[in-house]
Amino acid sequence: MADSAAKPDTEELYQKAKRAKADNDNGGGEAGEEPECENILSEFKTSKVLSDSAREKNIFIHGKLADQDAVVILEKTPIREDTLAELFTGSKLKLEMRNDIYSTYRLQAPPQLNEIKTTVVFPATEKHIKKYQRQESFLVEETGVDYQSITLPYIQKQSFSVQWVHNILEKKAEADRIVFEDPDPTVGFVLLPDFKWDQKQVDDLYLIAITHQRGIRSLRDLTSEHLPLLQNIFQKGKEAILQRHKLPASKLRVYLHYQPSYYHLHVHFTKLGYEAPGCGVERAHLLADVIQNLQSHPEYYKTRTLYFPLRADDGLLSKYKEAGRL
Amino acid sequence: MADSAAKPDTEELYQKAKRAKADNDNGGGEAGEEPECENILSEFKTSKVLSDSAREKNIFIHGKLADQDAVVILEKTPIREDTLAELFTGSKLKLEMRNDIYSTYRLQAPPQLNEIKTTVVFPATEKHIKKYQRQESFLVEETGVDYQSITLPYIQKQSFSVQWVHNILEKKAEADRIVFEDPDPTVGFVLLPDFKWDQKQVDDLYLIAITHQRGIRSLRDLTSEHLPLLQNIFQKGKEAILQRHKLPASKLRVYLHYQPSYYHLHVHFTKLGYEAPGCGVERAHLLADVIQNLQSHPEYYKTRTLYFPLRADDGLLSKYKEAGRL
Repeated sequence: MADSAAKPDTEELYQKAKRAKADNDNGGGEAGEEPECENILSEFKTSKVLSDSAREKNIFIHGKLADQDAVVILEKTPIREDTLAELFTGSKLKLEMRNDIYSTYRLQAPPQLNEIKTTVVFPATEKHIKKYQRQESFLVEETGVDYQSITLPYIQKQSFSVQWVHNILEKKAEADRIVFEDPDPTVGFVLLPDFKWDQKQVDDLYLIAITHQRGIRSLRDLTSEHLPLLQNIFQKGKEAILQRHKLPASKLRVYLHYQPSYYHLHVHFTKLGYEAPGCGVERAHLLADVIQNLQSHPEYYKTRTLYFPLRADDGLLSKYKEAGRL
Repeated sequence: MADSAAKPDTEELYQKAKRAKADNDNGGGEAGEEPECENILSEFKTSKVLSDSAREKNIFIHGKLADQDAVVILEKTPIREDTLAELFTGSKLKLEMRNDIYSTYRLQAPPQLNEIKTTVVFPATEKHIKKYQRQESFLVEETGVDYQSITLPYIQKQSFSVQWVHNILEKKAEADRIVFEDPDPTVGFVLLPDFKWDQKQVDDLYLIAITHQRGIRSLRDLTSEHLPLLQNIFQKGKEAILQRHKLPASKLRVYLHYQPSYYHLHVHFTKLGYEAPGCGVERAHLLADVIQNLQSHPEYYKTRTLYFPLRADDGLLSKYKEAGRL
């Protein structure tokens, strides 16, 4: 194997980190005997938090171990039903707030019932560090005028390739993945599973309908003339999913993204209850709402101020910053 | 107030639960002196896990405390950057696996660095227990007429108590948690942290603005006459969060729920990027969109068809089923 040299190197670095710890402890006996209990992290020096999630209780940290780059990932463990009795009797409880029947506490659990899963990448390369680096997002406010003067010129200049979409529509790629097709050139579409869905269970069902009609970049291009297209996708998409996956319309979240990740009109079908990435109110627009809004106001999406998140490294965000809009 | 009797009753039950504990401990001295350190949960008997999330590290438990129903919610706390150094030096580490540059460990942290947020609902009613019971959801389509003929009569008949909201507005409870207040009776509101947020980090910032004006049940009651109220909440809420938490408007998701979980108008402020429960497009409505829609159509939310998820055990869902609407 080409990189068989990597292993002894890693091992050597680990030993070096352990020796550093042993020296600091003024004694090295323990290090050799119980390597599984050795707290290698006591020597870890944090450089930067790459990302973290308050919801998922995890944190990704870049730092140094024995003068080498390392990434440490900490994630709290799920609360197990079989430890509850011990948790309730063996913990310390501190009252924070009481209002009527509601009270909140901070609970200090016995350490063995409350472990943190720890992953160490050591030594880590530049690529590992980038991989775990979170990009912050900013909410952008785009008026109809902003779209014409900032967003549209940017999209046109970038000329993002949608060749892969055309390949699907022309059956040059992914033809075997198509779940349903209406071949009509004006109101037709193909329906196929999103890459994120492994199709093993319907719990995280995720399909995409891509219009045969070309040139509709996004929500912003839609007017009442597109109502037959949108209604056709809504109706036939739901029917196809009912037939193939036995999920009725009442279990589906059907929506568009704005900004979309590619500028060829497409509609997302995900299972209600599955928190699919991008189904938040700041980016998703229910197809049913889009249809209603266009029915009562043909130019709704041309004139309305729309809000959407952009990542810090998105070129479009720079354009909004340059225009003094953030 | 009609249900002013609720408070002493709750207090009495807490005392009863504490006495039971004191008796079991063969000594009651501590109970009276340090109620904030009393482990009321050592007497809690689990009946059933109502739901749990391995992703979010929380668990919702139904059980008994002093022979009364109680619901206990445990949720591990986010990992804080400012505790990392202490966490790395003060923990025990157990090696699980090593493969080349990757290794995984179980880390036992000092208890004070690794608390579990605990919420107790006691005594709990059938409704509380149902609320936390994991349930499938169904998307309901509610026209303006459906609201008048199905939803509104149901809300009125249930007469869900908002006593705890009035307690907050009248400073009878949680007064010390209020972050900002505009006392104006028409356009004023109080802003305070949501129960779900422990306020230790802004990553999962979650605040609620509750209107002083009473009688606005939800989005459905809003017309253009409420624009000054909505704009005031939007503007002053953002300012207060910028001042106190240093988060600019471009980092905030500001929205209403429909259906709300209680029928007294309130607005959610959460950090963009934090996937707060209920921020999905199927339940959340951006306040900025609500304002725009009312500006161009004063009766928008009275006439529009609205979509929202209802849990299988929700009484309102039964009403929609009875009406043949599902």
